[in-house]
Amino acid sequence: VLPIRLAFAQTNPIVGDFAGNLEQIKSAALEASRTGIDLVIFGELALCGYPLGDLSYRRDIVASSEAALTELVGFSASIPNLTLLVGFARIASHENPAQSSKAIAHNSAAVIRGGVLLGRYDKQLLPNYDVFDDWRNFVPGDQELVIDVAGARVGIKICEDIWGEQKNPFGQDVDLIAVLNGSPYTFSKEAKRREAAKEYAAGVPIAYANLCGGQDELVFDGGSFVLDATGAEIYRAGFAEGLFEAIEGELQTLTENEKIYQVLVCGLRDYLKKTRQSKLVLGLSGGIDSALCAAIAAAAIGPENVVGVAMPSRYSSDHSVQDAIAVAANLGIEFRTIPIEPAHSAFEKMLTLSPLAEENLQARLRAVILMGISNSAGRLLLTTGNKSEVAVGYSTIYGDSAGGFAPIKDLLKTDVWRISRYVNERAGKELIPLSSIEKPPSAELRPGQLDQDSLPDYEILDGIIRILIEQNQTTTQAIAAGYPEDLVLKTDSMIRAAEWKRSQGAIGTKLSEVSFGSGRRVPITTRFEAR
Amino acid sequence: VLPIRLAFAQTNPIVGDFAGNLEQIKSAALEASRTGIDLVIFGELALCGYPLGDLSYRRDIVASSEAALTELVGFSASIPNLTLLVGFARIASHENPAQSSKAIAHNSAAVIRGGVLLGRYDKQLLPNYDVFDDWRNFVPGDQELVIDVAGARVGIKICEDIWGEQKNPFGQDVDLIAVLNGSPYTFSKEAKRREAAKEYAAGVPIAYANLCGGQDELVFDGGSFVLDATGAEIYRAGFAEGLFEAIEGELQTLTENEKIYQVLVCGLRDYLKKTRQSKLVLGLSGGIDSALCAAIAAAAIGPENVVGVAMPSRYSSDHSVQDAIAVAANLGIEFRTIPIEPAHSAFEKMLTLSPLAEENLQARLRAVILMGISNSAGRLLLTTGNKSEVAVGYSTIYGDSAGGFAPIKDLLKTDVWRISRYVNERAGKELIPLSSIEKPPSAELRPGQLDQDSLPDYEILDGIIRILIEQNQTTTQAIAAGYPEDLVLKTDSMIRAAEWKRSQGAIGTKLSEVSFGSGRRVPITTRFEAR
Repeated sequence: VLPIRLAFAQTNPIVGDFAGNLEQIKSAALEASRTGIDLVIFGELALCGYPLGDLSYRRDIVASSEAALTELVGFSASIPNLTLLVGFARIASHENPAQSSKAIAHNSAAVIRGGVLLGRYDKQLLPNYDVFDDWRNFVPGDQELVIDVAGARVGIKICEDIWGEQKNPFGQDVDLIAVLNGSPYTFSKEAKRREAAKEYAAGVPIAYANLCGGQDELVFDGGSFVLDATGAEIYRAGFAEGLFEAIEGELQTLTENEKIYQVLVCGLRDYLKKTRQSKLVLGLSGGIDSALCAAIAAAAIGPENVVGVAMPSRYSSDHSVQDAIAVAANLGIEFRTIPIEPAHSAFEKMLTLSPLAEENLQARLRAVILMGISNSAGRLLLTTGNKSEVAVGYSTIYGDSAGGFAPIKDLLKTDVWRISRYVNERAGKELIPLSSIEKPPSAELRPGQLDQDSLPDYEILDGIIRILIEQNQTTTQAIAAGYPEDLVLKTDSMIRAAEWKRSQGAIGTKLSEVSFGSGRRVPITTRFEAR
Repeated sequence: VLPIRLAFAQTNPIVGDFAGNLEQIKSAALEASRTGIDLVIFGELALCGYPLGDLSYRRDIVASSEAALTELVGFSASIPNLTLLVGFARIASHENPAQSSKAIAHNSAAVIRGGVLLGRYDKQLLPNYDVFDDWRNFVPGDQELVIDVAGARVGIKICEDIWGEQKNPFGQDVDLIAVLNGSPYTFSKEAKRREAAKEYAAGVPIAYANLCGGQDELVFDGGSFVLDATGAEIYRAGFAEGLFEAIEGELQTLTENEKIYQVLVCGLRDYLKKTRQSKLVLGLSGGIDSALCAAIAAAAIGPENVVGVAMPSRYSSDHSVQDAIAVAANLGIEFRTIPIEPAHSAFEKMLTLSPLAEENLQARLRAVILMGISNSAGRLLLTTGNKSEVAVGYSTIYGDSAGGFAPIKDLLKTDVWRISRYVNERAGKELIPLSSIEKPPSAELRPGQLDQDSLPDYEILDGIIRILIEQNQTTTQAIAAGYPEDLVLKTDSMIRAAEWKRSQGAIGTKLSEVSFGSGRRVPITTRFEAR
């Protein structure tokens, strides 16, 4: 079906690391050349990293992108039979008068072969929703580009171009449409990409190349693919860095649970790697959230680089400490116990606190301990809150919410249970103690406290959060979907009251269509009463 | 010069508070009607509050906006001689296919008179830079609107419409251009507005109406004005809520220092009022930053609602405590002293810390105390860091950076000195102790520590920050401007290393063109080496 030999280079760029990104590109190009590939397609902005954010305004950064491209063009003289299609940024020759932004650069693709820059294509449709700020950061292009590769005519597009109302502008005049993407993972995204590509291509084969790796809250999950002229998928690469030749019939797939697990591990691993950190610390409460985070941490960076700290208080139960010990032992991470009682008593003598403030105090003393270890030993502190807690503000700011990265902040509590069971299933043994999974959740900040004293049952709470946040619907719609009115209104009210806390929250890996991160932008100060 | 009697209604809406915003609008309309005004112009989205952010995606919120407008139209039957020009949001009848956003609503102006909705205008140029996300949140309009008011022809525009390349589309066919604005204060913004309005109007009188009040990090500073056909300013309203008739020759002005002071007070006052908070707590170190914040706090909410807490450590100097006592006494705020030694000693026995971690510990113990007071007494905690510190990360996360609002986060240290002297000058007495202004800055986290042990002189540091951040220029440009290469590169490196801390920082009032807030969007993970 494919008119040429085609490969995808799923590189993992770091924003602004032009030397490193170029090295990855050259390495993939050399490998492609050695194996006789005609065309290798890289991801969107593979030379710069994506997203650049407002760094796209900086002339030194765009100039570095252009300089790195020039070097790549020179390099390509040594591999004359290979055509490279590479994402980079370049200064725009003119602004778009209808665009009220400060953008100075195009989000572009370069076509390179045999030491020559054969053409450039500038992304036309610039997304401006969710985490995407392309209309803010780039000038749209307005010229189509079709190139000849080994006798085949190939039309070039970049990412959002294929998600708009306008479909394939080339008609049947091309043999293939090649699309460079920086497409972050969200639940079931793979099927949506294929559907968009099929609709867009309108009867022409289409090759979709993606980046692979974590960048702040985003994980680019590879999965480059080819659809034939009928829209049938004939090749799909896996979720891995490297060069992948498109071979008809090879379809690499993962189950949904495995995909989520790998995304969570990749998000943390690449945040550490790209910020040059290699050691972690986290509090182990004996609960499921910190246990799952510990499992993700051990997988991301190796158990020998993870310290788990139990910090029991006068209200901690014996089984909590036992569960904390168990998860550390199961994972093989270092374990420490530091009771907070001496500090707790000291503060009781220094301050008179309300009952709620006394609960918050305990969480903050734990943060002081963990940040002490973090600062002393250069260990990044993980904060272990899940999306249900982050949504309703069920956390202590500067307490359990303290940390540089929040691995499961976009995983609802009911999903935390599911993925935790899956972590044990894939290991073939109990990594996360069953008792952590099965016991009723508790913050243990006062005797006998349970999450469900303050919150709706998690099945109900998560259902409401899905409707109000992830589907951006109204309380009326949540009630119409069958959720009790009092719980819907209470949840909505708690979500709004927690806006200021979330505005100070750690970043964490995005999984859903609407995560609490740069893709959701709402005022802190609001007074809208739903219904 | 003015063909009609014209007034500006500088209302102070709360986002989503349709009942309250409508009440303000009705009240201004009644007053205008009583005094025989022909046309009253309100600010952008005066009915909804601005900016709405992603709340503009919610159909219940847009429906509430339309319902409130319908009520206003009914109300206007009782004041038949007054024309109202009011900003509101409405559902768009169709999307813009070239716009890749999730927007469903227009940012609109309604023309209302005598119980009739005479016309609607939808904002056409949607800004997408700095704090503005209009292209993300709204569908652009494409129809002009000219209305007749008491025999005069008036063309309608909204805010960014007059800042683009396209100028006055009405030519000389109108007697007046009326512009509804949601224009936040930044340094010298008033002159820029007048220049934009003059260039846009191209020989036609123009009336520019602005909102007035704080909304999260923004302060809308009123200052509605009229330019005559030559572009000369013939009227300017002050920085105050209320109805202002445009009377030729009345030009209300403030000095730059007074304007900055009032913006800082307004930003904090409205954040408190709009989030229904009325009490504050802050740490008083004896240094200038916390002293200036205390002065702003006392002015915003009354000294009787402010508690200042000195929390001396074993390293605190006597003069620091004396200066803290003095500022509290001068301002008339409540003062408490809570030495941190008992907690400090307790943690020393619990943990082995590196020297830097030991410094951070002290800052975090103070945050635990302050948040204990905050949680127990329902007092919002202010964090007192200035822009120079925020830029280079010279602060302890979860320590002195803890707080719900950061009054001076966009004020460079050299400006903190200037505004502090001005606070004393305008009071005609020493509110901020001269010794706090004149002593060398110190965090006092180890014996003899001074800021300048770790940082360039503040005059140099602030100059570099202005170039790299506020002017978005490169290190090469900063060096060309005369700053020492080693200090420029060190500052640039510190700025980038602090990105993760800033991402968890409190919001605070924006003053500069590039503040550390929603208007500056850069990745945390980057590896660009300047030069």
